Amino acid sequence: MLKIYDYKGFPNPTRARIALAEKGLLDEVEFVSIDVPNGEHRLPTFREKNPSATVPVLELEDGTCISECTAITEYVDHLVGEPVLTGRSAKERAVIHMMQRRAEAGLLDAAATFFHHATPGLGPTIEDYQNREWGEKNRERAIAGMRYLDQTLAAQPFLAGDRFTMVDITAFAGLAYAGFGKIEVPAGLDRLTTWRERVASRASVMRAA
Amino acid sequence: MLKIYDYKGFPNPTRARIALAEKGLLDEVEFVSIDVPNGEHRLPTFREKNPSATVPVLELEDGTCISECTAITEYVDHLVGEPVLTGRSAKERAVIHMMQRRAEAGLLDAAATFFHHATPGLGPTIEDYQNREWGEKNRERAIAGMRYLDQTLAAQPFLAGDRFTMVDITAFAGLAYAGFGKIEVPAGLDRLTTWRERVASRASVMRAA
Repeated sequence: MLKIYDYKGFPNPTRARIALAEKGLLDEVEFVSIDVPNGEHRLPTFREKNPSATVPVLELEDGTCISECTAITEYVDHLVGEPVLTGRSAKERAVIHMMQRRAEAGLLDAAATFFHHATPGLGPTIEDYQNREWGEKNRERAIAGMRYLDQTLAAQPFLAGDRFTMVDITAFAGLAYAGFGKIEVPAGLDRLTTWRERVASRASVMRAA
Repeated sequence: MLKIYDYKGFPNPTRARIALAEKGLLDEVEFVSIDVPNGEHRLPTFREKNPSATVPVLELEDGTCISECTAITEYVDHLVGEPVLTGRSAKERAVIHMMQRRAEAGLLDAAATFFHHATPGLGPTIEDYQNREWGEKNRERAIAGMRYLDQTLAAQPFLAGDRFTMVDITAFAGLAYAGFGKIEVPAGLDRLTTWRERVASRASVMRAA
């Protein structure tokens, strides 16, 4: 049986759970809770599974451990058929992976950096290095990322085109991370707000979140 | 004909060129030079192709523009057959994408952040925001990334397993970026050094670099 080590409710764990739910695999996975607020992800036993000390980690039946949400999504997307989250043709795959990096770097990672560097984050034990100025800079980046994604939705219903993909999962989690840091979506980004409501009401998202 | 907008010799452009050379596509592409040292990548005409203002950008025959090296590599890898740079099975794809993020975040992006924040980088016009302390922190991250990759090579000849993949391209460019910033590979990382020589002597790398 597949195993996921994560911490329910945090943005990156939610990404993997939504991907699993989209593929109908949520009940095929055993979830093991890692106590991230108390630093369990940094213990040597967990670092053996993921030297980067992040959740989620997917453990395959042969013991191989897969970290990084893009990689976990590639795995589940290639296990079973519909819906396709990472694209099929060369062009679909290219657009989806491009937009995935934009949603990650421009929104999710930026919001995470703001949260961990410019707010108390997960508290002084976990946040053992903070660079407040860099954190604040990333608040600007996260807001620029929101504006870019809003513009993208002027031409298409989902962030990588006509269909829901892993990019929508990433940006949805990015907005959740922004919420952790109390970065508000600027007024006027109606396309982004409407898209967010639409994603939030998907069956997979309601089951996973 | 496919077009690539880039600046020859810089680490990320080199990644795309190596991927193209591996797939035998280097001569199928028209290269357009963007004068990055003088800021041409930040002009509105270029931002229409890539709002993130980075090179390389791959322009398809239908005008679609693909930025981000992982996305460009996915494109070329799905156009033609051998060698496979992004994996085939669910597990291969997962391992490769996981290691790709580790090589990017842990080495290439860290070395780039050091170069752009803690050194004069591309000069005061391009480097219009620098956070020196954050740059220095990323020097440590880049060196930790080198140590991690060296350890990975204890068990396998290439960074994602038995075969050359996009992860080797990314880490090779990451070491080049570290070289730009004069971050030296620590003494004793013999596996990483030997691997680097092996990658440097590949026909694709010799043609692309």
